[in-house]
Amino acid sequence: MIDLYTFTTPNGRKISIALEELGLPYTLKVVDISKGEQFKPEFLAISPNNKIPAIVDHDVPGGLKLFESGAILIYLAEKTGRLMPSDPAGKAEVLQWLMFQMSGFGPMFGQLNFFSRVAPQKLPLAIDRFRNECARLVGVLDQHLSGRDYVAREYSIADIALYPWAAGARGWAPELFSSSPGVIQWMERVSQRPAVQRGMKLPELSR
Amino acid sequence: MIDLYTFTTPNGRKISIALEELGLPYTLKVVDISKGEQFKPEFLAISPNNKIPAIVDHDVPGGLKLFESGAILIYLAEKTGRLMPSDPAGKAEVLQWLMFQMSGFGPMFGQLNFFSRVAPQKLPLAIDRFRNECARLVGVLDQHLSGRDYVAREYSIADIALYPWAAGARGWAPELFSSSPGVIQWMERVSQRPAVQRGMKLPELSR
Repeated sequence: MIDLYTFTTPNGRKISIALEELGLPYTLKVVDISKGEQFKPEFLAISPNNKIPAIVDHDVPGGLKLFESGAILIYLAEKTGRLMPSDPAGKAEVLQWLMFQMSGFGPMFGQLNFFSRVAPQKLPLAIDRFRNECARLVGVLDQHLSGRDYVAREYSIADIALYPWAAGARGWAPELFSSSPGVIQWMERVSQRPAVQRGMKLPELSR
Repeated sequence: MIDLYTFTTPNGRKISIALEELGLPYTLKVVDISKGEQFKPEFLAISPNNKIPAIVDHDVPGGLKLFESGAILIYLAEKTGRLMPSDPAGKAEVLQWLMFQMSGFGPMFGQLNFFSRVAPQKLPLAIDRFRNECARLVGVLDQHLSGRDYVAREYSIADIALYPWAAGARGWAPELFSSSPGVIQWMERVSQRPAVQRGMKLPELSR
C-alpha cells in the first residue's frame, strides 16, 4: 500500500492520475498547503523541501519515502513496468518530455500564475517575461504534438506530467492555448481517460 | 561515439562532467547561445525546445537524439550502469534530488540571475521572491548534506546536476551560501574530482 501526500495542485494530481492509471492501492493523505501543513515536522521527515506530492511505499520493507513528482512518476512506472517503455530509446523520449515539464512548463507557468494573478503589484517586465516564455513552451509542445496522439510513442508519464499543468493554465490563461490546436486536441484526448478524470478530482476536500 | 551539443552554462556542464566521469568518448559541438545558434534548424531537429545541452548517441542505430540535461544524465547513468544505483530505493533517492535541481534549484537561480543581474529594471518584489526561494533551497540542501559526503548514498548524477549551479551561483551570490557550511564542504569535495575539473572547463571557446 502506498500513502500519497497531496493537495489540489497540478503536481499533486500527476500522482493521483498515475496511481489511478496503474490501479495501485493507495491512501490519500491531504496536506493542506493553504494552512501551512507542509511545514509540519512529520511531513518534512518525508519531504524535506516542504512540497507535495510525496509518497511512502509500504510495499518496500521499512517504507520507501519519495518526494518530487517527476521522481515519483519514474518510480511508479518502473515499479509496475507501465506508462514508460523499457527500451533505452523509448524511455529516453519519455524522460526528455517529462523533464521539459519539470524544468520548464511547470516552473514557468507557476511564475506566470504568481506575477499575473497573485503578486501584490503588477510588474509588466515580469508578467511579459513569463507570459512570453509560457507561450513559447506551449508552441514547442504544439509543434511536437503535430501528427502525434501522445507526447511520446504511447501514452506515458510525460502526458501525465504535462496534462494537469496545461489543463489548469488553460483555465486562467486561455489565450496562451488558442493558437495551439494540437495541444487542445491532445488535452481532450487525455481528459477522456477515466483514470485522468478520477485523478484530477483528488483530493476531495472535506468541509 | 556521442555528440554533445553544449555551451558554457551550468546545464551544459552537467553533461561534460558526466561524460568525463564515465570516460565515454564524445565530440563537443559548441552551440553559441550568445549568437543565437540554438535557433538553427539543424539544432532544433535535435533539441526542439532550443536549449542546450543535447546529445546524439551514435552507438544507437540511427542515432539517439536527446535533450534536457536531467534526461541525458539518467540516460548516461543507465547506459553505463554507473553514477546511479540500480536498486529501486537507491535510484529513487538519486532521482528525487535530481528533480529538486531540475524543478527548483536550477529554475529559481536562473530567475534570480535574471532579475538581480540582467533585467533592465530592478524590481524588488521579483528579486526578493527569487532570492528568498534560493536561500531556502540552499538551506534545504545544507540540512540534507549534514553528515553526508554526497547528496545520495554515493556520488551520483544528483551531485553532478547540482554542483555546476551551486558553484556558479556562489560566484555571483556568495551571501546565499555563507551560512551553509555543509553545502560549501560538499562543493569543495566535488570540485576536487578530476572529471569535474575537466568538465567545468568545457566547452573552451576559440577566439
